Amino acid sequence: MVTQITSMDENFAQWYTDICKKADLIDYSSVKGCMIIRPYGYAIWENIQKNLDQRFKATGHENVYMPMFIPESLLQKEKDHVEGFAPEVAWVTHGGHEPLTERLCVRPTSETLFCEHFANIIHSYRDLPKLYNQWCSVVRWEKTTRPFLRSREFLWQEGHTMHATAQEAIDETVQQLNEYADFLETDLAIPVIKGRKTESDKFAGAEATYAIEALMHDGKALQAGTSHYFGDGFAKAFDITFTDKENKMCYPHQTSWGVTTRMIGAIIMSHGDDNGLVLPPAVAPIQVVILPIAQHKEGVLEKANELKNRLAKSFRVKLDDSDNSAGWKFSEYEMKGIPVRLEIGPRDIENNVCVLVTRHNREKTVVSLDELETAVAAKLREVRDGIYAKALANREKKTYSCTTIDEINESIKQNGEGFVKAMWCGEEECEDKVKELTGVGSRCIPLVEEALSDKCVCCGKPAKHMVYWAVAY
Amino acid sequence: MVTQITSMDENFAQWYTDICKKADLIDYSSVKGCMIIRPYGYAIWENIQKNLDQRFKATGHENVYMPMFIPESLLQKEKDHVEGFAPEVAWVTHGGHEPLTERLCVRPTSETLFCEHFANIIHSYRDLPKLYNQWCSVVRWEKTTRPFLRSREFLWQEGHTMHATAQEAIDETVQQLNEYADFLETDLAIPVIKGRKTESDKFAGAEATYAIEALMHDGKALQAGTSHYFGDGFAKAFDITFTDKENKMCYPHQTSWGVTTRMIGAIIMSHGDDNGLVLPPAVAPIQVVILPIAQHKEGVLEKANELKNRLAKSFRVKLDDSDNSAGWKFSEYEMKGIPVRLEIGPRDIENNVCVLVTRHNREKTVVSLDELETAVAAKLREVRDGIYAKALANREKKTYSCTTIDEINESIKQNGEGFVKAMWCGEEECEDKVKELTGVGSRCIPLVEEALSDKCVCCGKPAKHMVYWAVAY
Repeated sequence: MVTQITSMDENFAQWYTDICKKADLIDYSSVKGCMIIRPYGYAIWENIQKNLDQRFKATGHENVYMPMFIPESLLQKEKDHVEGFAPEVAWVTHGGHEPLTERLCVRPTSETLFCEHFANIIHSYRDLPKLYNQWCSVVRWEKTTRPFLRSREFLWQEGHTMHATAQEAIDETVQQLNEYADFLETDLAIPVIKGRKTESDKFAGAEATYAIEALMHDGKALQAGTSHYFGDGFAKAFDITFTDKENKMCYPHQTSWGVTTRMIGAIIMSHGDDNGLVLPPAVAPIQVVILPIAQHKEGVLEKANELKNRLAKSFRVKLDDSDNSAGWKFSEYEMKGIPVRLEIGPRDIENNVCVLVTRHNREKTVVSLDELETAVAAKLREVRDGIYAKALANREKKTYSCTTIDEINESIKQNGEGFVKAMWCGEEECEDKVKELTGVGSRCIPLVEEALSDKCVCCGKPAKHMVYWAVAY
Repeated sequence: MVTQITSMDENFAQWYTDICKKADLIDYSSVKGCMIIRPYGYAIWENIQKNLDQRFKATGHENVYMPMFIPESLLQKEKDHVEGFAPEVAWVTHGGHEPLTERLCVRPTSETLFCEHFANIIHSYRDLPKLYNQWCSVVRWEKTTRPFLRSREFLWQEGHTMHATAQEAIDETVQQLNEYADFLETDLAIPVIKGRKTESDKFAGAEATYAIEALMHDGKALQAGTSHYFGDGFAKAFDITFTDKENKMCYPHQTSWGVTTRMIGAIIMSHGDDNGLVLPPAVAPIQVVILPIAQHKEGVLEKANELKNRLAKSFRVKLDDSDNSAGWKFSEYEMKGIPVRLEIGPRDIENNVCVLVTRHNREKTVVSLDELETAVAAKLREVRDGIYAKALANREKKTYSCTTIDEINESIKQNGEGFVKAMWCGEEECEDKVKELTGVGSRCIPLVEEALSDKCVCCGKPAKHMVYWAVAY
């Protein structure tokens, strides 16, 4: 009866893949390294898009669409950028039967295209800021791939903005990082660490890269969004200038920021359990599933339909009145992670009540039909708060403050993988050595640092920063 | 003061390009044959998407996302299909620094990918119908390109459905054609002819292709949407089978249907004038622009803001309180095609009125502020009805019923290009000859045919169908 998936404690990677398939999120195709996002998976993405798009527009951003191709010469205009991306782009060399005079890469990201456009449309301080965003797919030719987490093609949004001053651009970078963090915490119920990447981990061509880092159920970290400050480096490479109020020629300051379908992977690995997916109500395609009990009995289906119509005014609701058994339905909708299940049978109808079951803890509550809307809204909040608390407890349990390399190794050995908080002198050599000796790499320097010690965990020299370290997806 | 664009009567093609640029719809880039869709153009597309997506979902369709690449061997599985598309696809041959073992084309359309997926997920009659849709961009390596009308990359939606019976699939094909027609007529205010393509003009691999054809202001036809019935041809090529209720193995029947950013071109060429764009209210990013008159005078800006807040509850509104002159603002918002302009000055405020100006006919109406919402709604309907009537009058004026080749040539010579209605014997030879002798090609066999004569306009043999002929974009 119960849909078979691997237990998460037994084999977390296999459990993850099982959920992707059994919850009908994805399918594979003959296109290696790419995935098919099926209706249920895509509906989650649509809810993510709608939510973020509103947030972006509320802060003045406008959507645009750039070509999906980048001529090789354009990609090469900014030195660090091309070095970072050239090894992993897909190249178009032929159009129809004819070879192209210049090959084109399929965009891995669109800074170069935006810069070329900005050079065309920015002339005066009156043209600034430009606050653009694009929803599209991008391609990076990864060697090893996993659905949602690392795929040769993935869906994302990429914000690209231009500002008159460095400070404005830095503010934008931080504002968008905060927007991402708030979306993940409030709506996806995933606690995140906001921080800055070390020099070695910056986006190709950026002056500073900020990221939000989340800890998955298995203790591995997942970078869930990035926000980059470019200074005027690209502006200089692409000759983007504007005249300021004093009629002086200046270079504008730039940002870019993005989140991807990877967030669906973060949802799975933050909230899922051995019965399947657990979806945060804010992005669940179905928030409430109504299951009529003994539906052949008089009045049951009618009442179920009546409740559906009532709830549909405020929630995303599905009524399953199919012939499948109650047991099949229970496991199917648990697998799909639907936050609240509503059961209604003949005796409930007599008593003017129904049963609400919350997915994450299977708690049953009998509620009066007179207060159904209020009760469902409260249950959805309970699910959000419950799964957030669970994810936060998991992260807290798996966050280790360490002052020596031995402590790092010991903590991981005893408690499993997790976030290691440790001080760092700022030298890349030490960063590499920590990874070599312990397996955990630097994830970010948190915006709010703690002073765990005054010495680098690796070399013992004066510490400059506290760093979050982890094994990462 | 007035933004300079070429007059449409002088040079329609140049007028079109001028509008694309001057109304800030697009920009060019170094990616030949592709366009940048700027915020104002993209906002029109977003409104089109939102409207159509609701329509598709209301009839049970679900969105999915397929990979953007198609392996060459997969493209080749259906013979007619590969013959139709291979000459115009872009080929990816390298991933990073390494050559691919099999080259991949960037999807020109996704039938092959959907079929491969359908073969995986369709097994029983219980799995049918599958009603899928995808929003994405596709690539066709065109030689000559024009913004929105023909571009190497364009945005579109492609519906792909599978049904247990041929009749169900045919019904779906027609239903979606009707949906497109209703959207264009009701929401874009563009009258269309619904019809079937002749054999020579069918989609590669289809049994029947239906299309909606619109006549542009210059008398050229534009195919604005297509809906294909595939029978079970692809199902056989891709080995998609299901067991029916009697446990018999069957092939399902298939459809696909699509509309593209080309519709923005149709809007421009149906409704635009020498002052710029004229947007149908249903998809206009801004439906009402509020221009305060003598805005430095006490109370004017306050009142303008008050009206903006009132109208924003029901309409998409912009208040322009910039320092630009009234004359500049008038021409700017006429260029952008905003359906209704609201002027409010000190004397209007005294009299508790404002002035509404409809874009398409520049008609001014003084309305009481007490009835503003009703008045604006009525004006928006007026714009929709007015531009629809104008486009329909243009089409009627430029539709010629002809029974001989000479009549066709004479009609076009005297009245300019347009739709030619003429009978046809059904032979491809005659179809080609009509084009050769008159310049007009077959556009479609309308769903509702008239009997203009019983003889083919070309060979004089018995006529099988009435055909709409035209020079097409």
